[in-house]
Amino acid sequence: MTYELYYWPGIQGRGEFIRLALEEGGARYRDIGMLPKTHGDGVTAILRVLEARGSRRPAFAVPILKAGRQLIAQTPNILLYLGGRLRLAPADEPGRLWTHQLQLTILDLYLEIFHTHHPLGDGYAYEEQKAAAKRRTKDFLAVRLPKFLTYFERVLALNRAGTPWMVGSRLTYADLSMAQVLAGLHYGFPAATRRELRRRPRLRALHDAVFARPRIARYVASGRRLAFNNEDLVRRYPELDR
Amino acid sequence: MTYELYYWPGIQGRGEFIRLALEEGGARYRDIGMLPKTHGDGVTAILRVLEARGSRRPAFAVPILKAGRQLIAQTPNILLYLGGRLRLAPADEPGRLWTHQLQLTILDLYLEIFHTHHPLGDGYAYEEQKAAAKRRTKDFLAVRLPKFLTYFERVLALNRAGTPWMVGSRLTYADLSMAQVLAGLHYGFPAATRRELRRRPRLRALHDAVFARPRIARYVASGRRLAFNNEDLVRRYPELDR
Repeated sequence: MTYELYYWPGIQGRGEFIRLALEEGGARYRDIGMLPKTHGDGVTAILRVLEARGSRRPAFAVPILKAGRQLIAQTPNILLYLGGRLRLAPADEPGRLWTHQLQLTILDLYLEIFHTHHPLGDGYAYEEQKAAAKRRTKDFLAVRLPKFLTYFERVLALNRAGTPWMVGSRLTYADLSMAQVLAGLHYGFPAATRRELRRRPRLRALHDAVFARPRIARYVASGRRLAFNNEDLVRRYPELDR
Repeated sequence: MTYELYYWPGIQGRGEFIRLALEEGGARYRDIGMLPKTHGDGVTAILRVLEARGSRRPAFAVPILKAGRQLIAQTPNILLYLGGRLRLAPADEPGRLWTHQLQLTILDLYLEIFHTHHPLGDGYAYEEQKAAAKRRTKDFLAVRLPKFLTYFERVLALNRAGTPWMVGSRLTYADLSMAQVLAGLHYGFPAATRRELRRRPRLRALHDAVFARPRIARYVASGRRLAFNNEDLVRRYPELDR
């Protein structure tokens, strides 16, 4: 089967969590938002799938994965679906739930990163909410970020499999997403992230191990992985990175 | 099996989504945070389960469901687990994923409701972020809330089963959570919610049908369901409910 991924072009965003799973899992997929104009406009195709005419199960937002005739939305839900098929999650139920639980927590952190620069939501431009962003970020860097990273470092320490991964001895989609969030943190808050990761060797090792995976390395080298940029959900505003 | 639910006492919060599923599913459970002091302090028990000594799979936050020796955290993950066991989700995989997708979207809306009064996070009291809350709420009531409610009303319209539910002919945990969010909206934003629901008869019918279920009605009448209050994730600040 050839999957179809629907996500806005120009940013990594939530789509990148899905891309990393598809790439590591060796899946065939078409990245619809990225299609060149000559193959039909990606954005038009996305709007059409959001409209979901003829479907009884429309999605609220992208990312959407089309698998055969099935449309699956919500990032953690898509990963739950792909986890079993691409061997990126344990086969036993407790293991699958634990991986999903980690994924949901990783995405909670990701959303809090977005809120640092858009605490009032995307109804206002960053420039219209700079003062609020500064206060939100102060609490994020002082309290929330260390709390999340301490938790994930502990999860890694508790996994006695002797691998860099969070769940047992095999890489899961949660490891891919964790590495992606760490890469985002390095982009958005280089100073704070360097400081925070100094005391967290297991998270550093996980990040490096994910981006050293042959398929992930090939994907990054292919030029298909977009660069982080300030239209994305993770942004770099030096005034926020105390 | 007797489940144990760990969630902060005094508020409905995210714990209530789990309680409604346990009640409707007829499950036996102990609500640890609510235990009277004579049975040991609920908060101490919660802190102990968060500490998770002896467990290799600690939770980041409550709610946590203890099922036998398994600790399961993250609200949608707990509902995913309970859905199959309490017959509150379809048995087929596409149906299960669709129910989970709806649940994740309902919880996205719930989080946005929390952010109306705490856009800068809970590191600051409401009184310290009133101006930001006012701006956040303005966009929420004008743009986000109608967008979510239009989506869910459409989902109900697309379900041709002739029932008040979102997925096929049987009630799911997503219906329970949807009704709970609508009840929260009625509490937090009575004027805006009345206005928004005027044009959305299917959401009104779903809310009423859930709270008319015999087991849910018995639970509400038992006095065990806490009242909404302004320590909760949904709050009523009349100055925000234009």
